[in-house]
Amino acid sequence: MKRSVYNSDHEAFRSSVRTFLDRHVWPRTEQFIDERAFPRDLWIEAGKLGFLGLGVPEHYGGSESGDYRYSALLGEELAHVSAALASSLSIHYDVVAPYLVELAGETQRRRWLPGFCSGELVTAIAMTEPSAGSDLAALRTTAVRDGDVWVLNGAKTFITNGCSADLVIVAASTSPARKARGITLFAVEAGTDGFTRGRKLDKVGQPEADTAELFFDDVRVPHGNVIGEVDGGFVHMMERLPQERLSAAVSNVANAAQILRETIEYAKERRAFGRPVGAFQYNKFRLAELVTQIEVSQAYVDQAIAAHAEGRLTAVDAAKAKWWSAHVQNEVIDACVQLHGGYGYMNEYRVARAWRDARVTPIWAGSNEIMKELIGRDLGL
Amino acid sequence: MKRSVYNSDHEAFRSSVRTFLDRHVWPRTEQFIDERAFPRDLWIEAGKLGFLGLGVPEHYGGSESGDYRYSALLGEELAHVSAALASSLSIHYDVVAPYLVELAGETQRRRWLPGFCSGELVTAIAMTEPSAGSDLAALRTTAVRDGDVWVLNGAKTFITNGCSADLVIVAASTSPARKARGITLFAVEAGTDGFTRGRKLDKVGQPEADTAELFFDDVRVPHGNVIGEVDGGFVHMMERLPQERLSAAVSNVANAAQILRETIEYAKERRAFGRPVGAFQYNKFRLAELVTQIEVSQAYVDQAIAAHAEGRLTAVDAAKAKWWSAHVQNEVIDACVQLHGGYGYMNEYRVARAWRDARVTPIWAGSNEIMKELIGRDLGL
Amino acid sequence: MKRSVYNSDHEAFRSSVRTFLDRHVWPRTEQFIDERAFPRDLWIEAGKLGFLGLGVPEHYGGSESGDYRYSALLGEELAHVSAALASSLSIHYDVVAPYLVELAGETQRRRWLPGFCSGELVTAIAMTEPSAGSDLAALRTTAVRDGDVWVLNGAKTFITNGCSADLVIVAASTSPARKARGITLFAVEAGTDGFTRGRKLDKVGQPEADTAELFFDDVRVPHGNVIGEVDGGFVHMMERLPQERLSAAVSNVANAAQILRETIEYAKERRAFGRPVGAFQYNKFRLAELVTQIEVSQAYVDQAIAAHAEGRLTAVDAAKAKWWSAHVQNEVIDACVQLHGGYGYMNEYRVARAWRDARVTPIWAGSNEIMKELIGRDLGL
Amino acid sequence: MKRSVYNSDHEAFRSSVRTFLDRHVWPRTEQFIDERAFPRDLWIEAGKLGFLGLGVPEHYGGSESGDYRYSALLGEELAHVSAALASSLSIHYDVVAPYLVELAGETQRRRWLPGFCSGELVTAIAMTEPSAGSDLAALRTTAVRDGDVWVLNGAKTFITNGCSADLVIVAASTSPARKARGITLFAVEAGTDGFTRGRKLDKVGQPEADTAELFFDDVRVPHGNVIGEVDGGFVHMMERLPQERLSAAVSNVANAAQILRETIEYAKERRAFGRPVGAFQYNKFRLAELVTQIEVSQAYVDQAIAAHAEGRLTAVDAAKAKWWSAHVQNEVIDACVQLHGGYGYMNEYRVARAWRDARVTPIWAGSNEIMKELIGRDLGL
Repeated sequence: MKRSVYNSDHEAFRSSVRTFLDRHVWPRTEQFIDERAFPRDLWIEAGKLGFLGLGVPEHYGGSESGDYRYSALLGEELAHVSAALASSLSIHYDVVAPYLVELAGETQRRRWLPGFCSGELVTAIAMTEPSAGSDLAALRTTAVRDGDVWVLNGAKTFITNGCSADLVIVAASTSPARKARGITLFAVEAGTDGFTRGRKLDKVGQPEADTAELFFDDVRVPHGNVIGEVDGGFVHMMERLPQERLSAAVSNVANAAQILRETIEYAKERRAFGRPVGAFQYNKFRLAELVTQIEVSQAYVDQAIAAHAEGRLTAVDAAKAKWWSAHVQNEVIDACVQLHGGYGYMNEYRVARAWRDARVTPIWAGSNEIMKELIGRDLGL
Repeated sequence: MKRSVYNSDHEAFRSSVRTFLDRHVWPRTEQFIDERAFPRDLWIEAGKLGFLGLGVPEHYGGSESGDYRYSALLGEELAHVSAALASSLSIHYDVVAPYLVELAGETQRRRWLPGFCSGELVTAIAMTEPSAGSDLAALRTTAVRDGDVWVLNGAKTFITNGCSADLVIVAASTSPARKARGITLFAVEAGTDGFTRGRKLDKVGQPEADTAELFFDDVRVPHGNVIGEVDGGFVHMMERLPQERLSAAVSNVANAAQILRETIEYAKERRAFGRPVGAFQYNKFRLAELVTQIEVSQAYVDQAIAAHAEGRLTAVDAAKAKWWSAHVQNEVIDACVQLHGGYGYMNEYRVARAWRDARVTPIWAGSNEIMKELIGRDLGL
Repeated sequence: MKRSVYNSDHEAFRSSVRTFLDRHVWPRTEQFIDERAFPRDLWIEAGKLGFLGLGVPEHYGGSESGDYRYSALLGEELAHVSAALASSLSIHYDVVAPYLVELAGETQRRRWLPGFCSGELVTAIAMTEPSAGSDLAALRTTAVRDGDVWVLNGAKTFITNGCSADLVIVAASTSPARKARGITLFAVEAGTDGFTRGRKLDKVGQPEADTAELFFDDVRVPHGNVIGEVDGGFVHMMERLPQERLSAAVSNVANAAQILRETIEYAKERRAFGRPVGAFQYNKFRLAELVTQIEVSQAYVDQAIAAHAEGRLTAVDAAKAKWWSAHVQNEVIDACVQLHGGYGYMNEYRVARAWRDARVTPIWAGSNEIMKELIGRDLGL
Repeated sequence: MKRSVYNSDHEAFRSSVRTFLDRHVWPRTEQFIDERAFPRDLWIEAGKLGFLGLGVPEHYGGSESGDYRYSALLGEELAHVSAALASSLSIHYDVVAPYLVELAGETQRRRWLPGFCSGELVTAIAMTEPSAGSDLAALRTTAVRDGDVWVLNGAKTFITNGCSADLVIVAASTSPARKARGITLFAVEAGTDGFTRGRKLDKVGQPEADTAELFFDDVRVPHGNVIGEVDGGFVHMMERLPQERLSAAVSNVANAAQILRETIEYAKERRAFGRPVGAFQYNKFRLAELVTQIEVSQAYVDQAIAAHAEGRLTAVDAAKAKWWSAHVQNEVIDACVQLHGGYGYMNEYRVARAWRDARVTPIWAGSNEIMKELIGRDLGL
């Protein structure tokens, strides 16, 4: 069904994003995979066009419009290329931005936001730990105050942009007895003594994404790098969950929709037993089902985008959008692989890469099971 | 997620529908089932409140607002009671109305629409035949012109309101050689010689719906009862499909949403092994999934309602809404039965009846397979 | 795939069962539904042929062969007619029989088993209670010893053969403090003062099965009617679970397999759009999937039959067979309904009745959720 | 459920296979992946132990027992390591062997079988083509007779053991007008002029499998290298399908069963929110479902093994086993990934590799859709 969440201004912006992708991204997708990272010049180009500062006020170098739809639209277009591209950039412009804009003090903002917007300061956010997974109450990274500095010790894993980030927001336990209510957020800068990165993780998919382990060994972080309130980290993170989850949902549906479009074209062209494979009734019905699933899911995500643009998206509704879209994305792309036959198993085909890329979306940033737990609680169960 | 398709005027209308249901419907649901029909006085009450004339201009006795949302909202509220109630009334006010308003001539309108709006003239529409099913090209009911009258012969089946209808719109082949392009619509009035009704069909569910076979044995219908163009019936029907399918989709989701709400309450109250059954994680997650499925589907149907209110809903998008909603409705209510344990298998429980009622929605008015065929064709496959 | 669990002796027995069905059952299926019970003369005929005494030694009037395969085969053939027929008879010859043969004392056996085998003494077993469901630890029916008698008070529900049973084995709490370990089984005979039956329950399906509530109001049961050990009921029941669950699994698969065979025939004959409906690729593939699912499930049930015939079927493996077969049965029959189109919704079609009948199998005799809990525990989780 | 298809002799053989795996395979799995092939010394070791000649009579160097169960058991054990290992070896000992044993002439057997059994002559079979996929009637590789030699031209793709094979059985069209009935099989030896291999294909999974494209450019093959009848290739291939499909099914289930066992152990050890992840009811039930699915599928495959050992497995029953097992394998391993959380997405975890490996099984050697087509035809649809 024709979508109605975007107006002509948004569509004009979409054109500028597509121009950027055509010029700087599509010709280099193989390079990104070979280098297992998005090169800095790509960030700089994105910064020049204002894409990184969509959530940042103009006087800090941003291009804030006050309309979340621009961020969502950018996420969609990036996800048309790959889930990894959408993830790497949106962690920065969509997930980290609110911490620096809403929670950081004036000094912090002036220091970091201009580089954040220009692409000179790439960011990451580090919550997940090797032992604790999604359980913030079990955080083992600690920060102990020593006068004007905090001393961090611990390790984080599965951190997107982990190796390339110039600034990482790290959640650490500052009052272990208070568990989740004793977490503080720290901005840890690259080059700080004791802060090291592990190898890039060898993942099932998303090879171009720089996903890493981070280690903190007596890292001394100035008190001035605390983001928000001491012991207030849990609430700070909870309040930003709707946007993070929505950002994931936007990418999930857009990515699957794009792969499905490409698959429909393939099914019209590829022939078997004397006919286009899409002309066989079983395949035709399967594609009809997939198109419906995508459009239905898009309608929900669009409703969430509109709600968030008006500031009324709840964390639990965002949780619904996140798990559902991840589920549909994987089901749709899996069916697209099957429709490609043996070529669907060859990495040179986009559908094959997309299938590998997508498998993480029901796991990361709160697994589907965590989302269902939250929704169940919200039902009063 | 909070819906946005209705405004405060619509919600005020919803209140009036609920008052009607509380007064005239809820206390009598057992009676409807025992009588296997909705009594005429119910139609009359609905007529008094303007519910039957939502699609009819005022000068014919209607309450037309020019806003399809009122019709959709009425369908939702009826479906909260039962799929059969929604179906029986919406066949009349939502499906038949456009034929009489848009295709009928002035004489026809003056003759039938006032009774149509007041509930004194209940209507039905008869397309499906015992042998042809959904295949209009294979229609066997024929109408042969004999001067000023047409002589109808044939049989129809699965006709909602079949026994109680005072006026039935009948699709008959008038130019058999032209197949689907040779179909004409006739308004056949109760009491016409040769027009008889079979027994009420003994269905799996929806016992309160009057579903019947109709027989036409040399039925002489005046030429003045032709609805629309001679040989134009196929196009007339095709053009009205979006609204018919949307009407079904609205009911499907609303019905399942209501049963799910009731099941969540049940899962909070019913205890097993010392806890509410909804507190068991498996059930809690299941309910979280079902709530998500309903909200996602509702978003799509709401998008379709909004599109139709603006006159831009396509038949193929309506087909997506219809099959998907029927699929979700059945999956959700089936899970609700399971959550009720043994009581879910007892007819005295609403969930049990709803489960039986819902099974027809992926079959009637164009089966899910037909919908997928149409969607597949629309993809160019 | 060709089954190998039965040999030629079993197949000869199958012929005799089919002769019985052709003569005494198939011509009367409508009568059973109308009467909402299987008439006593049917039991007597089954008894004459030795079907009711398959698990009873010859000197008590039985036809025990020492080979469980005969019981399984009988269950299959009954399930070809209907799930209700299989359930009503197998509760007697397959579920209750072991209690009377293995746990009853010599006096009890002599008193009850001859009538049990001849069909003059129809039996039932009553565990489930309105409030407790499957939770034996929460049993509220109590039995208090008063000299040579026990005084029973409480209520049971969902009891197959509840109204027609001459003898009901009732689980009652005799040592409430010991919970599940304080349950005793009593043989309560029809006509005992204070033992009354409620109305036949109005179920979604299986109308011909006599399913009822039972009430015990100061029912005085002689101590000589205790079955097995006082306070030993829980263990007695647990030990007999493999056979009960296997019996259910046998019926589930056989019933679905039969409906599928009939549906394949229907799909070859019924035409739409100029072809048999089974010739459409989507339907053809769907039927191929269903046939596979049935054969795969049959292989597992056959393996379980063979294991049980050798006395090595575990309760947890029987649980696997029970839930899986119930799941497959419902999925297969649901698809068969869809393949029948509108006729699948008409009660006069066997597929429609079978669909309604089957819905209880994932609920009764330990729901699918209970089965998964048991399997999970067995995995050490 | 305890399996019964193998006896103590088979189990003794299983021990010898496991010793081989422990010594020569498990310590080197990373090496195989790095080298993207199984090294020749592994083949030689397998040959020494008689594993490669299970289907070859002793006087040609084989260890034929006349009992297919040994081959199946070997396949299972190999699949416990990886799908790629099972595939590479079983293509040789299970798929190609019958062509050389049953169809080859005495001269051919003496020439090739000793090396076949010792591992000095590794084989492959080449049917699939870039353009034709599974459609043998559309084969474009041709062989034209020129006196005592045949001149082959064409290309094959997705050929397992493609780069390392010393002998490839190639299907080529010798009578194009006769389509499938004009296909002949040729044994093409490595080193023959004009026979070249493309790069190893970059696949989604199974990196250690050597999968390649093969090119035939005026390759002159002696008439003495024809396998079976000229123009008889189609029938030769059809007759060997049951064993090929069964071999795939055996591997599919064994592979998934092994990964599931490992996942259950992981779910007992890995903790989240203070408990083993397998202790959460949702996960517990999920694992109970997966265990059931595996055991049910194993029962069917075991039934097929037993049938094939007796020479009565049909191609269509083997098709059921193949598609179903591929479907279950993928569903089970996908759920196992989810149960591993973020680690399930890391290639260092076996579950991650297995997930990638498994995706090809519903595609290769006749896709699930092809299998359903065959089953549907067999039903007379």
